[in-house]
Amino acid sequence: MNKDAVNIYDIARMSGVSIATVSRVMNGSEKVSEKTRKKVMDVIGKVGYTPNVFAQGLGLNTMHTVGILVPTIADQYMSSAVAYLETELIKHGYDCILGNSGFDMEGKQKKTEMLLSKHIDSLILVGSTYAGDGSDTNATEYIRAAAKRVPVFIINGNVNGENIYASVCEDEKAVYEAATSMLRRGRKNIVFLTDSHSYSANKKKNGYERAMKSVGKAAKEAKDGIIYVENHIHRVRDQLLAMENLKCDGIIASNDMIAIGAVKYALAKGMDIPEDIEIIGYNNSTLAISCAPEVTSIDNHTEEICKDTVDRIMKILDGGEEKLSHKISVPCTLIARETTM
Amino acid sequence: MNKDAVNIYDIARMSGVSIATVSRVMNGSEKVSEKTRKKVMDVIGKVGYTPNVFAQGLGLNTMHTVGILVPTIADQYMSSAVAYLETELIKHGYDCILGNSGFDMEGKQKKTEMLLSKHIDSLILVGSTYAGDGSDTNATEYIRAAAKRVPVFIINGNVNGENIYASVCEDEKAVYEAATSMLRRGRKNIVFLTDSHSYSANKKKNGYERAMKSVGKAAKEAKDGIIYVENHIHRVRDQLLAMENLKCDGIIASNDMIAIGAVKYALAKGMDIPEDIEIIGYNNSTLAISCAPEVTSIDNHTEEICKDTVDRIMKILDGGEEKLSHKISVPCTLIARETTM
Repeated sequence: MNKDAVNIYDIARMSGVSIATVSRVMNGSEKVSEKTRKKVMDVIGKVGYTPNVFAQGLGLNTMHTVGILVPTIADQYMSSAVAYLETELIKHGYDCILGNSGFDMEGKQKKTEMLLSKHIDSLILVGSTYAGDGSDTNATEYIRAAAKRVPVFIINGNVNGENIYASVCEDEKAVYEAATSMLRRGRKNIVFLTDSHSYSANKKKNGYERAMKSVGKAAKEAKDGIIYVENHIHRVRDQLLAMENLKCDGIIASNDMIAIGAVKYALAKGMDIPEDIEIIGYNNSTLAISCAPEVTSIDNHTEEICKDTVDRIMKILDGGEEKLSHKISVPCTLIARETTM
Repeated sequence: MNKDAVNIYDIARMSGVSIATVSRVMNGSEKVSEKTRKKVMDVIGKVGYTPNVFAQGLGLNTMHTVGILVPTIADQYMSSAVAYLETELIKHGYDCILGNSGFDMEGKQKKTEMLLSKHIDSLILVGSTYAGDGSDTNATEYIRAAAKRVPVFIINGNVNGENIYASVCEDEKAVYEAATSMLRRGRKNIVFLTDSHSYSANKKKNGYERAMKSVGKAAKEAKDGIIYVENHIHRVRDQLLAMENLKCDGIIASNDMIAIGAVKYALAKGMDIPEDIEIIGYNNSTLAISCAPEVTSIDNHTEEICKDTVDRIMKILDGGEEKLSHKISVPCTLIARETTM
């Protein structure tokens, strides 16, 4: 008998016991009699079956563990998402194993493998970096491979494929609305600052460009308003200060860290905020209220999305049968503070 | 044969193979012949031995995994510490499993058990909350129990016991020096803000009290200068604003979040910073530079401590024999910014 073809059902049938009993033996439960334990283990010995192959079986020998992958836990958005996820998972009796993948392809693949090797029941990828830029399907092949083993959930990113579920924020719409509201207030030169080419960053850029075009700006002009920066407060400030021809009265940033760099730029220039320049950040994080003036920020409802994701995981793990929608969209909310009129 | 008394050595002896081979069979390695695999599994079947009991054996079947416990990963200090630890561990081929324990005794004990059940090679506790208040030994009994199973490392806290290793910052000295430098600059009414009764918070308080007494303040007066607050920017600000008799020209806070609350208080009062009031935070986090004015902060060298901790773990796990010192102290550094003269 080919050991790869043997599963828990076979062991149960060959031992003349129930699947639950085999599972109990595998988990070292006290409730199994020595006689039954020996019978099951004899069968396992006979078919040349090893514990690890076992544990990677049909999910019956669950470790009640969910793997969470983030590009970097040092980021505020990621660490709050992990905290929300963990709080919800624990309510359902699940523990979590964390992996930091970095932003490179190799790290993402390696850490996905690592988490899968820990006998996780499901995998959660946090952040749109895992969705690539939304066009290159090679860049997401490892996710489809993982989804053949466990259900995969992506927070704020979308990857197509069976057994893959996505929760995304309506970033395009949020930035479009933030930009058009600035335009309505008479702002003439709005720029968009970002550090990323991710799926989510691209949606935000699209929202910005669409708003610019809606007031008659040419495509090139709209594109020129997108400035790439580093995700670092002082470097954003210094980069903007070094741009001699930069004339802007409105800034939208793809996260709060970058928005604060923009605030520091405006302060260094002696501009009045929000009279001379309006600034909007993203994520509505603690950073936004750390700043003075406090930064208006787009709230992408991380807590709600994380709760929702865990609910959906439980529907699959507990029920099994329920049909989940592949993708859920959550609208964002603009939280107005002192950097907008 | 009592199954609990059987270990990997017995299985190897009874199968007539090496321990390494038994380990390979247990890990489902491809390098084991079908014949050898069957021989080992037959022995396992005969002695009524189950895989899980196996894995909890003598540590030979290492999962190359380190457990990391934090009270909350949403906190900036904790999330950067975890990022540093994970980066270092991965260099040595170790993965990490994360647990969020909360600040309650029950959560700490439960999550410690959870991590131990995942066959970790070592346990790292991040944050001085795990050291209790430094006096109650009952509150740290679960740590000594864990240390009977794996080496335990505490970051920024000290618990006595065998197989327990601590890395602490010299918080007492750092706060003493920060306060005396403010006193030297002529500040008359310095208060200390904290949200915690932890080991580390107590050291900071001691440093503050010692500095106050050094300029002739009575013990009671020094104690009265300690104000308990919530770890929340706006609530700190509002609490200070509500204290009608609060007259202070210097504030030292036990973390940057609280320091920023103090900055917001001073700004709301129309005070000039640092002329009318000096403010010093703690942890030298991103929050400190998010604020305007940027906050002077005490750097407790998290990255250095984390690297050091992983180095020490590897000395134990790789070498086994090396004698490690129980406790390492790391001095703090004051990073001067715009909230001090």
